[in-house]
Amino acid sequence: MASVIKGLSKLCIHTQTTKPWSLQECVTNYSKAGVKAITIWRNVLEGINLNEAKKILDDADMKVVSLCRGGFFPSVDSKRRNEAIDDNLLAIEQAAAIGAPLIVLVCGSDSRQPLETSREQIKEGILKILPAAEAAGVKLAIEPLHPMYAADRSAVNTLQQATDMADEIGSPFVGVALDVYHLWWDNNLEREIKRCGHNGHLFAFHICDWKVPTTDMLLDRGMMGEGCVNIRQIRGWVEDTGFTGFNEVEIFSSTYWEQDQEQLLHKVINAYLHHS
Amino acid sequence: MASVIKGLSKLCIHTQTTKPWSLQECVTNYSKAGVKAITIWRNVLEGINLNEAKKILDDADMKVVSLCRGGFFPSVDSKRRNEAIDDNLLAIEQAAAIGAPLIVLVCGSDSRQPLETSREQIKEGILKILPAAEAAGVKLAIEPLHPMYAADRSAVNTLQQATDMADEIGSPFVGVALDVYHLWWDNNLEREIKRCGHNGHLFAFHICDWKVPTTDMLLDRGMMGEGCVNIRQIRGWVEDTGFTGFNEVEIFSSTYWEQDQEQLLHKVINAYLHHS
Repeated sequence: MASVIKGLSKLCIHTQTTKPWSLQECVTNYSKAGVKAITIWRNVLEGINLNEAKKILDDADMKVVSLCRGGFFPSVDSKRRNEAIDDNLLAIEQAAAIGAPLIVLVCGSDSRQPLETSREQIKEGILKILPAAEAAGVKLAIEPLHPMYAADRSAVNTLQQATDMADEIGSPFVGVALDVYHLWWDNNLEREIKRCGHNGHLFAFHICDWKVPTTDMLLDRGMMGEGCVNIRQIRGWVEDTGFTGFNEVEIFSSTYWEQDQEQLLHKVINAYLHHS
Repeated sequence: MASVIKGLSKLCIHTQTTKPWSLQECVTNYSKAGVKAITIWRNVLEGINLNEAKKILDDADMKVVSLCRGGFFPSVDSKRRNEAIDDNLLAIEQAAAIGAPLIVLVCGSDSRQPLETSREQIKEGILKILPAAEAAGVKLAIEPLHPMYAADRSAVNTLQQATDMADEIGSPFVGVALDVYHLWWDNNLEREIKRCGHNGHLFAFHICDWKVPTTDMLLDRGMMGEGCVNIRQIRGWVEDTGFTGFNEVEIFSSTYWEQDQEQLLHKVINAYLHHS
């Protein structure tokens, strides 16, 4: 079991957690609350140029942990697959421009074709963008998604599968983003975290909670402590691999997005300190 | 890949698929449509005595494949765990009385305790009811449920886990019920079906489909062919193990339950013949 969290030095918040806020609002408010690290969702980069975004981040001395998200490689339509490659190359440019060392890949799935085909296309897609990522010094993290998203969001659904894919690709620039929401149920999780870390693939650690009941498959994630995930136990397994990265809070919740976002930010920090 | 289905001799329908119907209505209508096998959900036994139920089934020469459902073993509360044992013993009596050779176990989970604890309590629960099951000649099938139910319906979420548990228990009366809805996403499914069958544990095969999008986590299952599951491929893997049991249609759908149930039954049969 991991030790109790004592401060905010390892806390990173995903801009999507406070979705109603612009990049500037995220940075200003996170900073004011003592949060020093951020993961940028690409929607907050829309409508501002990348130099401006970089300046907002630098002015606040805000560390960028990741850019979310690349991926969505598979499609029955080769034109769509090519568009996905272009979009991922753009993401690499964006990441390099704002100083994000990592892109999280939500790998995608196309329910009109076998999962095996989608999985092959994911691997192909990553191999295609890898030279650009390496040249830009930007790492890529395969994020295994909960099996309830296998049909439309990711054909990579367990840590074992993601680690195997990273192994097969075999580049120090390709690893895994581990989100407790997607993987908490897996009876092999401890073993697979150890293997992923041992193989040098553990690039990112995302936290939130699984609510009981969960009323929406996408937008009903819980605040840490509000659900049934033993976050501290999983964090312990992650830290035991030698992982020294951030604990990234990523909560998609239509309920929380409707609330006052400053109050939400304080709830996040409180939950982080007491339930992570 | 399995061969095309040519008739209804291997078709079994779960009474829950046509939930608005009583046992008598299910049996009468299934028979009229040429369906010769049924899996009985316990709700249709409420309010009639078991001899009466048996007579309804025998009069129509309807083969009973399974009784659904036992299980729900875990709880933080030992009184609730004991009540679950009593309820499972009752299910064994019911199964024996109506001639059901198998009880499907929806194993349960209690989100107030670690998954590991729930898993231990599931195994303990099965071991407690096993002597009664053996004495009654009724088999027990652990049904691994989709990981989205790990918090509240089953802490057994993969075929590997279910097969391991059946192996550990080591009785010819304990095996596995495989439902494509719960397991289609698993990249190890073919291998695990082979192992499950090889170990003598493959007791039942349930079919329906995964809709894209799925709008409700419980009551939005699809008719075969309506979603993205490659049912024929999975049926081929199952049959390759030597499985000669029924293909059991089990669809929970608030949409279908609102429709005319005779028309629904004909949709089921048509989908079975063309998309299974």
